[in-house]
Amino acid sequence: MEAIRQRIAARALVPGDRLPSIRQFAKTMRASPSTIVQAYDRLVAEGVIAPRLGSGFYVTGRTLPPLLLAEAHTPTTRAVDPFWVSRQSLDSDPTTLKPGCGWLPTEWMPNDALRKAFRAVARGENSILSEYGSTRGAVRLRRLLTAQFAEGGLDVSPDQVLLTGSGTQAVDLICRLLVRRGDTVLVDDPCYFNFQALLRAHEIRIVGVPYTATGPDTEAFEQIILREKPRLYITNSVVHNPTGSSLSPQTAFRLLSLSAASNLLIVEDDIFADFETTLVPRLAVMDGLEHVIRIGSFSKTLSASVRCGYIAARQDLIAGLIDLQVATSFGGPSPVITEVIADVLKGGSYRKHMLEIQRRLGKSRKVVACKLEDLGILPWVEPKSGFYLWCRLPDGQDSTDIAVRSMADNIIHAPGNVFSVSQSASSFMRFNVTQCEEERVFHSLEVLFAGRSLSKTAKSGL
Amino acid sequence: MEAIRQRIAARALVPGDRLPSIRQFAKTMRASPSTIVQAYDRLVAEGVIAPRLGSGFYVTGRTLPPLLLAEAHTPTTRAVDPFWVSRQSLDSDPTTLKPGCGWLPTEWMPNDALRKAFRAVARGENSILSEYGSTRGAVRLRRLLTAQFAEGGLDVSPDQVLLTGSGTQAVDLICRLLVRRGDTVLVDDPCYFNFQALLRAHEIRIVGVPYTATGPDTEAFEQIILREKPRLYITNSVVHNPTGSSLSPQTAFRLLSLSAASNLLIVEDDIFADFETTLVPRLAVMDGLEHVIRIGSFSKTLSASVRCGYIAARQDLIAGLIDLQVATSFGGPSPVITEVIADVLKGGSYRKHMLEIQRRLGKSRKVVACKLEDLGILPWVEPKSGFYLWCRLPDGQDSTDIAVRSMADNIIHAPGNVFSVSQSASSFMRFNVTQCEEERVFHSLEVLFAGRSLSKTAKSGL
Repeated sequence: MEAIRQRIAARALVPGDRLPSIRQFAKTMRASPSTIVQAYDRLVAEGVIAPRLGSGFYVTGRTLPPLLLAEAHTPTTRAVDPFWVSRQSLDSDPTTLKPGCGWLPTEWMPNDALRKAFRAVARGENSILSEYGSTRGAVRLRRLLTAQFAEGGLDVSPDQVLLTGSGTQAVDLICRLLVRRGDTVLVDDPCYFNFQALLRAHEIRIVGVPYTATGPDTEAFEQIILREKPRLYITNSVVHNPTGSSLSPQTAFRLLSLSAASNLLIVEDDIFADFETTLVPRLAVMDGLEHVIRIGSFSKTLSASVRCGYIAARQDLIAGLIDLQVATSFGGPSPVITEVIADVLKGGSYRKHMLEIQRRLGKSRKVVACKLEDLGILPWVEPKSGFYLWCRLPDGQDSTDIAVRSMADNIIHAPGNVFSVSQSASSFMRFNVTQCEEERVFHSLEVLFAGRSLSKTAKSGL
Repeated sequence: MEAIRQRIAARALVPGDRLPSIRQFAKTMRASPSTIVQAYDRLVAEGVIAPRLGSGFYVTGRTLPPLLLAEAHTPTTRAVDPFWVSRQSLDSDPTTLKPGCGWLPTEWMPNDALRKAFRAVARGENSILSEYGSTRGAVRLRRLLTAQFAEGGLDVSPDQVLLTGSGTQAVDLICRLLVRRGDTVLVDDPCYFNFQALLRAHEIRIVGVPYTATGPDTEAFEQIILREKPRLYITNSVVHNPTGSSLSPQTAFRLLSLSAASNLLIVEDDIFADFETTLVPRLAVMDGLEHVIRIGSFSKTLSASVRCGYIAARQDLIAGLIDLQVATSFGGPSPVITEVIADVLKGGSYRKHMLEIQRRLGKSRKVVACKLEDLGILPWVEPKSGFYLWCRLPDGQDSTDIAVRSMADNIIHAPGNVFSVSQSASSFMRFNVTQCEEERVFHSLEVLFAGRSLSKTAKSGL
């Protein structure tokens, strides 16, 4: 897109000119034809070029609003805070490599099942196509969820489940209901960076609990509860983000005992449940939703475009959450969205799809760990499930520094400190193994490390 | 659904029994076959009955979680507050009449265009099917919006537009960015009831500005600004909800002058723009987005299931709103949703569809106004566009009382006071003319009025 824009700006292409053919331009740019198709499509959407039936693409002569040119990327001068990784990876163009992002490549998703479900929507009832839907969200999907929960040992009725716009919105609604400005909320240190961004938006005091390979440090947890009197604790039990480790039964029991004694509510974000390959204890199951709220979504396993989250909680909490969702979103998630998710979950292929994903991930985690090890980058634990490797960089390399410098190579990394409340993870980096398929990721790190070592050597040589 | 459930509860139908055929049961219930199909489908979703290929539906014997039975309806004992109409109408079953709801019947929506767009999604790119999309939302839809704005005289670049999950979420994000707990926000009195629900969720002080047939009372507006120092004013310029009236140019100019002088920001909710049949001045256009934020959505004209809202605002505000949307929803609206909306808007049929809707509404407003007049229910103004009639009930009838008693007739009304900050609209009722097609609406009111008059007479006779 940039190359075409530059040619137009330089008047090498003027209004009415025909653009190079897809094949020809793919050769020039050393890109795949599908990348060029995508770039041309986007330029068409921007009105810069227009297709003529059967004869290629032409420059329209319409000028772009000047700000649009700068829009695609978040300025790199922005502080490397919890928003940094989100905005960089969400707004990146398709040529960017994203080992720092938190999702699977689109080819890994169950796209055929999604297509089938959308065809069914196109044939389906008007009410699914154009109505608001009920305040709790489609009962069909809530029943499927409760059936899943029951398999895991948690019996809840579908009316204890509220469907939300996303997993993030689920946490947001819970904070709105239960936490007030200035209250304290506990998170793991390190934890998913967007928990921090979200809590900051609520002007909530965030306190981190040191995370160990078997869950949060329960001694520290106890002391912090006594000292801080927090309202909530937000955590992942399975495939903890960013470390990839999971809760041990002992830690789970200890956490629940401590929380019950001090009336602390726990939000257990179960978003990675379908990646689980070994049996991990769930706080929501052990506790039976008395002091635990379970949330989750389908964005990591099914589709981030067909977005929907859920909250399973005590009946009294659900009633308040429904009103809040009506006030702030007018109703639950779209009937189309929930119908498509229910279709995919119910279709026979989903379980098989996830087994295949788990198999691929097991292999991918090993391959990427080996390649990282060659660079002296070592995983903190060896995760049994999921797509994250939480790794220490060699020689005191600073991960924020590496992340900023990687932008020049068109690579987005997730530096440790965006996950750390105490800012104590500067030598860590989270790698998404599914986004590390190109050698360029490793080569870029090697060059950056070498540069840093060279300049160190140069300095010490002075 | 209730009839089948009762038969199962009474063991008139036991596990393995075949249900009455659709045609036969439609006759028994005096309902249309499509209603029965819908009821059976829902019972299937609940697991109560199951289809057998080519031979009808059978009782499964699975028992429902007891709470589910009670769930479909919000308890009628609930206070008649701004949540009341939303929850009643969103959670109503298909047999309920909803003259109080705020949307068109599903058959009025452009369902064919939606089906076509979903078929295109099913054939389209993986990235639309399963990726998060960019933080501002699809540029394709933002460009279509800015082209629409330009037609109306407002030039903004697509990067001044942020797509959101819904129109309500747009207002919510703006409040999160600009207003703090305890601040004062102005709304019209009467105004769309969910503005109040939303502002209360933010713990914001709400002050109402008396609304006249040409917009807010500007003298009262001036005094209130001086006295209350509000941060925001939220209003509709076209087809004001609930009154159906629109802003006059004089009022628009005066409002903008007063707001600019006191640095008050105005949120102009343009959700009814596509219903407009006469040219109404827009605050956003006159002001050029300096002190005005334009919001809107496609829920009323295109689909409430394919939900998406937008915010058009100054660049500095958009930057903050993007971060807030990432923190609270992780990204903009779904690429599938925005793709479908863009497809429908771009398709040639949408404009024709809206012209037809406008024609039907003009007729419908007249017919319903006549029928209401027969009952002594008189519109406060005669709206030129839209589907609302804001009416005064005869003989000091109390609209809250009527709304509560109408529940027994399975009819949901929107009583005046849910729209009124000052609670001064007890004799008003908002009617959605498109939801008044059944005579039962008028007959029920007639009986209720008569009952009330009778009891009055009876009382005065004592």
